[in-house]
Amino acid sequence: MAINDDYVVGVDMGGTKILAAVINAKGEIVQQAKTATKPKKGADEVIKRITRCIVEAIGGAELKPSQIRAIGIGSPGPLDPETGVIIFAPNLGWSNVPLKAELEANLSIPTFVDNDVNVGTLGESAFGAGQGVKNLVGIFVGTGIGGGIILDGKLYHGVNKTAGEVGHMIVKANGPRCGCGNFGCLEAVASRTAITRELQKAILKKGKKSILTKLNGGKLDQIRSQAIAKAVKRGDKPTIKVMQRAGKYLGISVASIVHFLNPEMVVLGGGVIEAMGDSLLEPIRQAAAKYALPTTMDGVHIVEATLGDNAGVIGASVLARQRLP
Amino acid sequence: MAINDDYVVGVDMGGTKILAAVINAKGEIVQQAKTATKPKKGADEVIKRITRCIVEAIGGAELKPSQIRAIGIGSPGPLDPETGVIIFAPNLGWSNVPLKAELEANLSIPTFVDNDVNVGTLGESAFGAGQGVKNLVGIFVGTGIGGGIILDGKLYHGVNKTAGEVGHMIVKANGPRCGCGNFGCLEAVASRTAITRELQKAILKKGKKSILTKLNGGKLDQIRSQAIAKAVKRGDKPTIKVMQRAGKYLGISVASIVHFLNPEMVVLGGGVIEAMGDSLLEPIRQAAAKYALPTTMDGVHIVEATLGDNAGVIGASVLARQRLP
Repeated sequence: MAINDDYVVGVDMGGTKILAAVINAKGEIVQQAKTATKPKKGADEVIKRITRCIVEAIGGAELKPSQIRAIGIGSPGPLDPETGVIIFAPNLGWSNVPLKAELEANLSIPTFVDNDVNVGTLGESAFGAGQGVKNLVGIFVGTGIGGGIILDGKLYHGVNKTAGEVGHMIVKANGPRCGCGNFGCLEAVASRTAITRELQKAILKKGKKSILTKLNGGKLDQIRSQAIAKAVKRGDKPTIKVMQRAGKYLGISVASIVHFLNPEMVVLGGGVIEAMGDSLLEPIRQAAAKYALPTTMDGVHIVEATLGDNAGVIGASVLARQRLP
Repeated sequence: MAINDDYVVGVDMGGTKILAAVINAKGEIVQQAKTATKPKKGADEVIKRITRCIVEAIGGAELKPSQIRAIGIGSPGPLDPETGVIIFAPNLGWSNVPLKAELEANLSIPTFVDNDVNVGTLGESAFGAGQGVKNLVGIFVGTGIGGGIILDGKLYHGVNKTAGEVGHMIVKANGPRCGCGNFGCLEAVASRTAITRELQKAILKKGKKSILTKLNGGKLDQIRSQAIAKAVKRGDKPTIKVMQRAGKYLGISVASIVHFLNPEMVVLGGGVIEAMGDSLLEPIRQAAAKYALPTTMDGVHIVEATLGDNAGVIGASVLARQRLP
């Protein structure tokens, strides 16, 4: 097959929007389409919207569906990557939705489904920060914290297909309560949710002087990563302190992961990392180096993800290619 | 080759004693020999003692060295499992000792070296608690805490060959100081060293009434696992409290490992676990279940190691067989 004929479609399905992209064997986006998810209309309607979005991307690339070798989808989960059934997706209101089977019925193209964070990690591994690296761990910091494990270039799933849940590794036993109900998970001390809680505590409860409220549109009920990044750049002390704390916990968790799995690389991505860049990467690297045993961290790269919003569709395209028989 | 001709030698090298065993393909010990390590006499003398111990085991089995297909050795480390060089072994006083090369020169039998805890995990995986399980994590609780990772039936080493360092995963950031210099490592809250510290604090400093001092020979400077186990069995409250705390931290770490790697099984062994049995396994299982996200722990077995002191030589025999070209 000539490279010009070698196309797959990668789909990034979120609670708000659906992205579909026709992607070639070099991981390049040839054409993409985007639509709103509208999860409240129900699973049937969302699957129709995914189908239309895929068809639109294929048409936009002036291709026929028969020219698409496979479709890969990154979806919220938990899900079964073998059957392609979404077991439970709270932000979609889904339980036991046979996404793979429905799309294959609609489009007659082999379809493969995996967890969105796994797929993002796979994208970074194949065409992003991790090119050429066989074993890596991805950590994505946003409202929550998710992760994925790549071993020998492929996703590692574990016995219950839940591997890579770095957000719920316990970094501070008896620490702050997590959304999952436990105490001291990484997500409970370093996600945007945790960062927001600490910033509200410092600024609203303790009355620390800060420019963050102004940067965030006058309120602190939800704090945007960009506002945090700006406040840090302008030297805002309470924000810097809270972000150094988050960076420390992320770095400690990176050290734990390096002690345990000793991957070649840890890739950090997600909204918080993208907005903050090196101002968060540096405290993470410092804490990781401080907490790592001698030799364990030698040559282990702690790097920022490079694909940004495209990690989902590109990773989904890699998934599709790897899973094709 | 008939099974009666299929022998390897497994060696368990510790700071105090050397065990060598001739082992058949079923993992059965045919003959074994034992000698003191005497590390103070230097690496050359220790290697002579290992060589003699191996020769003695082979002779005792009425075999010739030429009938031994390979030798496997579990050694303290860090070490390089490929070159068989012991990089650093503080309790032997070794640095950069080419153990594999020296033994191959002495005995002309292919020799393979790996970390003692890795080798113990491999033994449990092949012929102990983990028979039939492809992916498992071993955690060995003694003076320190070590671990090993088996993926697809084989040892997983990681980029710096240091994978499986569960003892230095951080479970309680800013917690008690660890021997490694950091704070809040699992080893700092759940090893016999940490347990001893907590028991001394409760009994000697806080003056809690306890039968442990008597059970431990009148002193608490070093506390034996057997004395702890007896005190728990007799309902000694301070000891029970300290051991429940250790069990909780071990269970939290098991949950973190299950979240991250999602193995089929976690095997717990080492002196503390062997002495305590279910009285420690149960708090570990309870904490792990409490801290695990739904579905992550489904069907994951948390079990006690079954090979005891033989895990080393049996694991070393498995290593030898797996690494033979």
